[in-house]
Amino acid sequence: MSAIAETPAISIVEVGPRDGLQILKSILPTAHKKRWIAAAASAGVREIEVCSFVPAAVVPGMADADEIVRYARTIAGLQVIALAPNVKGAAAAFAAGAHKVTMPISVSVQHNLANIRKTHAQSIDELRRVIDLRDQQPKASRPAVEIGLSTSFGCSIAGAVPLEDVLRLAEKCLATGADHVTPADTIGIANPAQVKRVYAALYGAFGKAKIGGSHFHDTRGQGMANALAALEAGVTSFDASLAGLGGCPFAPGASGNICTEDLAWMLEEMGLSTGIDLAKLLACRDILKDGMPNEKLSGHLAEVGLARTQSGGRVAAAR
Amino acid sequence: MSAIAETPAISIVEVGPRDGLQILKSILPTAHKKRWIAAAASAGVREIEVCSFVPAAVVPGMADADEIVRYARTIAGLQVIALAPNVKGAAAAFAAGAHKVTMPISVSVQHNLANIRKTHAQSIDELRRVIDLRDQQPKASRPAVEIGLSTSFGCSIAGAVPLEDVLRLAEKCLATGADHVTPADTIGIANPAQVKRVYAALYGAFGKAKIGGSHFHDTRGQGMANALAALEAGVTSFDASLAGLGGCPFAPGASGNICTEDLAWMLEEMGLSTGIDLAKLLACRDILKDGMPNEKLSGHLAEVGLARTQSGGRVAAAR
Repeated sequence: MSAIAETPAISIVEVGPRDGLQILKSILPTAHKKRWIAAAASAGVREIEVCSFVPAAVVPGMADADEIVRYARTIAGLQVIALAPNVKGAAAAFAAGAHKVTMPISVSVQHNLANIRKTHAQSIDELRRVIDLRDQQPKASRPAVEIGLSTSFGCSIAGAVPLEDVLRLAEKCLATGADHVTPADTIGIANPAQVKRVYAALYGAFGKAKIGGSHFHDTRGQGMANALAALEAGVTSFDASLAGLGGCPFAPGASGNICTEDLAWMLEEMGLSTGIDLAKLLACRDILKDGMPNEKLSGHLAEVGLARTQSGGRVAAAR
Repeated sequence: MSAIAETPAISIVEVGPRDGLQILKSILPTAHKKRWIAAAASAGVREIEVCSFVPAAVVPGMADADEIVRYARTIAGLQVIALAPNVKGAAAAFAAGAHKVTMPISVSVQHNLANIRKTHAQSIDELRRVIDLRDQQPKASRPAVEIGLSTSFGCSIAGAVPLEDVLRLAEKCLATGADHVTPADTIGIANPAQVKRVYAALYGAFGKAKIGGSHFHDTRGQGMANALAALEAGVTSFDASLAGLGGCPFAPGASGNICTEDLAWMLEEMGLSTGIDLAKLLACRDILKDGMPNEKLSGHLAEVGLARTQSGGRVAAAR
């Protein structure tokens, strides 16, 4: 191992504080969120989606969004991402200092209507307002706007989602000024062959620089295989959630996002650098246990521990 | 869908009645095992590892091995596989009518000593006796002998397992007369890059016809990604266990083999034919619930159900 810090080949974006927490009954106290974010950053996670700027009446657990973004911004080197469903949320995220705002628009119109009560035309209008606001931010610290193309791989309401619909919405979002678009497997229904098709089409149509990363849920147990397929398609950025937090409203026992620590283990064992210290990452789970004792934590690696991992030498050296 | 029966491209080998059950505290009653085997075959599973011929004092749940093989042989079209750790077990399996006997030999000598109390030389001697016995069976119904190369991807005792050791043991087994060898991820520690390396080396050294299939555990959450990697390496046969049965002695909450129904869903969604009716396969879980009410069943697809699968048309048509 070289002592010189290298830029890791792969970025794992911890989305647990947003996507993981927003669906849970428990509310993780603000102090625990801060400890988690600091501990994840200390473990080597360089990008965290820390919160969602939504009405506290709708998602009480996100009432501390402003405080959380401001805290996260004090951590050197951390890329702070916030979700905002509309221009009001984006304005708050920009004001708090988020480096990037992710705005979800569902490829399935039915899902978009159910999730954010907008048609596609209304969502594009909203995006235009967000872009105008982004362009008013100081150039030196101008935040990025990314569109999460929800239901890109299938929809719980509409069923199959045609790839042409993904491409059409992506084109509109980029033409409106979004910095990136990311296809999201919102309901965990993608399969690896489809993942490769979707990325090949997006890269072919818009170039790799315009496609943000990947977002898989593990609802049907396909998350890790889909992440591998995305990796093989050229993806280098992966959303994931500590302890697989998140769940699914349609599936009581199913896990949420793919599990950060299991994914990091896979990538590191494959010889790809994530910059993550697995022992420190696993220790972050204790913060969740302490702050949300009634929530079930998922993830396989944590059950086995690191002692028996194959590359024992590397893990030990990283400590 | 054509009404003409086609040979499915991919074979999923249900190993739950052997690998899944052997580690559980509960004993699945013989009548339930028979119902499970019949129901799995009726769902389109064409190969089942139905039992292990080991002393009942060691694994009480396998005391009915002879009865189970004889029952399974009454199901038309079903390939009946039994595990046997030695010539005594193989003789019993041949006598009961097993089409194939799988004999485990660990690549890691330490694991082989711990698991079957033999050195490699002793295991090869034992294999020679099994091969002699196989060759005495009537030519028209001569069973196959497959070696499960346990710990091919890593060992809980020895740590990393060199690929050269896998190749060396495979060569000895094939030279001694084994029909096939299958690398097994006994402790669920493989990663996808390694899976591709191991299969490329085995195929390159011995030809694809001599390599039996694949055997992954999901101990570290890598099972589905490893199965995808194996598929891409050219593997067309996958061991899996209904409801991910099996567990791991070192990891109380970890699942066992990769989950048959989640794997079948992935392959079918990728457009690969497994011959399996997913609805009928999922229904097999009820037999386990009924026969082992205290055992936790894993698997993601069962939590969501089939109603929201993408290819609703195909699933409906298969009913």
